[in-house]
Amino acid sequence: MRLSRSLIPTLKETPAEAQIASHRLMLRAGLVRQTSSGIYAWLPAGWKVLQNISRIVSEEQANIGAQEMLMPTVQSSELWKQSGRYDAYGPEMLRITDRHGRELLYGPTNEEMLTDLVRQSIKSYRDLPQCLFHIQWKFRDEVRPRFGVMRGREFLMKDAYSFDLDYEGAVVSYRKQMLAYMRTFQRLGLKAIPMVADTGPIGGNLSHEFIVLAPTGESGVFYDAAFEDIDWEKSNFNAHDPADLENFFQTATGSYAATDEKHDEAAWAEVPEARRREGRGIEVGHIFYFGTKYSEPMGLKVAGQDGGQLVPHMGSYGVGVSRLVGAIIEAFHDDAGIIWPDSVAPFPAVIINLKPGDAACDAMAEQAYAAFKGQALLDDRDERAGAKFADADLMGHPWQIVVGPRGAKTGVVELKRRSTGEKVEVSLEDALARIG
Amino acid sequence: MRLSRSLIPTLKETPAEAQIASHRLMLRAGLVRQTSSGIYAWLPAGWKVLQNISRIVSEEQANIGAQEMLMPTVQSSELWKQSGRYDAYGPEMLRITDRHGRELLYGPTNEEMLTDLVRQSIKSYRDLPQCLFHIQWKFRDEVRPRFGVMRGREFLMKDAYSFDLDYEGAVVSYRKQMLAYMRTFQRLGLKAIPMVADTGPIGGNLSHEFIVLAPTGESGVFYDAAFEDIDWEKSNFNAHDPADLENFFQTATGSYAATDEKHDEAAWAEVPEARRREGRGIEVGHIFYFGTKYSEPMGLKVAGQDGGQLVPHMGSYGVGVSRLVGAIIEAFHDDAGIIWPDSVAPFPAVIINLKPGDAACDAMAEQAYAAFKGQALLDDRDERAGAKFADADLMGHPWQIVVGPRGAKTGVVELKRRSTGEKVEVSLEDALARIG
Repeated sequence: MRLSRSLIPTLKETPAEAQIASHRLMLRAGLVRQTSSGIYAWLPAGWKVLQNISRIVSEEQANIGAQEMLMPTVQSSELWKQSGRYDAYGPEMLRITDRHGRELLYGPTNEEMLTDLVRQSIKSYRDLPQCLFHIQWKFRDEVRPRFGVMRGREFLMKDAYSFDLDYEGAVVSYRKQMLAYMRTFQRLGLKAIPMVADTGPIGGNLSHEFIVLAPTGESGVFYDAAFEDIDWEKSNFNAHDPADLENFFQTATGSYAATDEKHDEAAWAEVPEARRREGRGIEVGHIFYFGTKYSEPMGLKVAGQDGGQLVPHMGSYGVGVSRLVGAIIEAFHDDAGIIWPDSVAPFPAVIINLKPGDAACDAMAEQAYAAFKGQALLDDRDERAGAKFADADLMGHPWQIVVGPRGAKTGVVELKRRSTGEKVEVSLEDALARIG
Repeated sequence: MRLSRSLIPTLKETPAEAQIASHRLMLRAGLVRQTSSGIYAWLPAGWKVLQNISRIVSEEQANIGAQEMLMPTVQSSELWKQSGRYDAYGPEMLRITDRHGRELLYGPTNEEMLTDLVRQSIKSYRDLPQCLFHIQWKFRDEVRPRFGVMRGREFLMKDAYSFDLDYEGAVVSYRKQMLAYMRTFQRLGLKAIPMVADTGPIGGNLSHEFIVLAPTGESGVFYDAAFEDIDWEKSNFNAHDPADLENFFQTATGSYAATDEKHDEAAWAEVPEARRREGRGIEVGHIFYFGTKYSEPMGLKVAGQDGGQLVPHMGSYGVGVSRLVGAIIEAFHDDAGIIWPDSVAPFPAVIINLKPGDAACDAMAEQAYAAFKGQALLDDRDERAGAKFADADLMGHPWQIVVGPRGAKTGVVELKRRSTGEKVEVSLEDALARIG
């Protein structure tokens, strides 16, 4: 995109309403604008980031055999009355009445709706297991929305739901999702640690939160450094082999890791001192096994192999997709702005033309821009060099290709890596080859 | 996907509530299920179709320089009061009150919101023109939702908005969008004809509906056959050259075409008789120039070149993305089921294993499936051959690869093209090569 023709309204001043780094930087870098309390419009650069994250989440769900679908945002209250959650949910549920006086709601989650869809379609043990997910906007009417997209009202979430014949099957589904999560977060550039979470009345140890390490995180976290060295993308755990999944689960949960709420000083003392890490973290995902909590009251049953009827065991698996944009910025920024991981950056590179109108600069900048087939950002604005450099650092493009009048004569650009600040003068061809 | 492990619940019987072919077939082929009146969940195969259409729409918008973004579904009533539409919109607007008693609404369209975002960000004539679009769910509280996704309440729409310095600029933006539409519909396999529509108080001829020809369409249409021969994808009209756009506009609107509402018998009589075509059609898009209707009351102004202030001229450009799924099926089906155009089919092919459990059949079916890298559908169900053939025709996959015990021994499959019914016995390699 050409910056002069794009709606990427960067701000020099820090907006007064923004208390945390990611909120400030998302506004300043022109990624989002609030349209009403806790509700945001995603401007072109922000929307690219959200799509990049969604694509990675979706690919890793597909890799474990989950099927993508899309459930609507507006739900009828009827199913929520069947599950008993309509009255229980409280004022965070956005309740709506349509023109005929029927009770609707803006879905905060989809257990009821998907249980109903599966109940209509699945009749036999042979049709299970099934795992389905969607990436859809949800609404939670927070009493005090804050921290930008980190605690908004309309937010984008990936929610998956598994249906298995029995507890053992549900455990396999749960572990598959955990493996998908470790790979997803790693591809997003994040170190995310699974930590045991409350399971409520069901009990057991099958509820985990995924916590991203960030100095500005909402919770304190304690973890064993052994965890840091595992490469989940390259690990050969096979999502379709239950024995492999058990090994994976031991690896992912075998070392100490806890939020301050769940911290256990006795267990912590057993971690060798050199491996103890303390920090802060942001919750970006939560997975949960809940047995027959919805299938039972909603009457989801399948014919079993022996002629009897089985009530499927379910789990649900959430990732806060829009929240991840904030979490990634909390983890990757400096005083000058955002430092995007390559996998989620809105543009792989910015090409800064220091002298638009100069024939040699224009030709070289256009040549560089063409090499990215429209995927890079071309800063072709009639602005001071200093303003362009500041905006490039603020927006956080992984690479900056600077085209100036001196270099344009000799075929040389300045190439800057945002994450390290390293700058080199190289030919345009070399610069493109380094970016890959 | 493996059909035995997928939520694609085909139905043998025709659901009683479905009055038109596309509604019947979308239910029978397991593409969607209604979750409440006029609101649908998109099951895995249906969601793939909707994504394919969205991708084509988005690519053609990008090709004319429109920027993709995403505005939220829930809006505040305030901007609608500024534009004067809050009271005017009537009971089709889904009005919502949040926990603090604030008036919200589920957006039926986004003129107000985007005008406000542009008003915050754009200050100078140098920042224009701009064209932005999003593909987002909208809600219209129809008094009597019907015809499945063709007239639902929660529906997916692409809406683009252009901002230009003056009328002449707005005409260029309008023509660009029309070119994008012709290319979009052609890529979707559709013959869509632009027809002059009402412009309301603004006047002029800058409002067109795009009508897809289908025997079950809602409107009667009259058009000159000259229109049928134009290949918009291959045409070399350059969206970035105003002179070329003028030629394009003459070509696209120069021949007679009108819905029955706008039909003009005198003009029709001037079309040579051999070229007169009458039929029925479905509206799938509407583009509209509306001048300063929103920019004026909402105070969107930019500094002009001469120091004065200019009020930008706007247009909006809608495509009914979820409605298109129905329209495509209305245009392409027979008694046995859907006949997907290649570009939108949920799967390029189905591989029908006639004898799961037979080693040779399984090996060959898996080999074919692997060749599609998971993108094809493998019918691995333990069902009668007749049921599998019927489901394949119903689901409308462009190609069927039939693997049976006899052919599996000699390396031969039966390849069927759904659109023509043509069947050939060929080697698996030849079949894959033909599918491309």
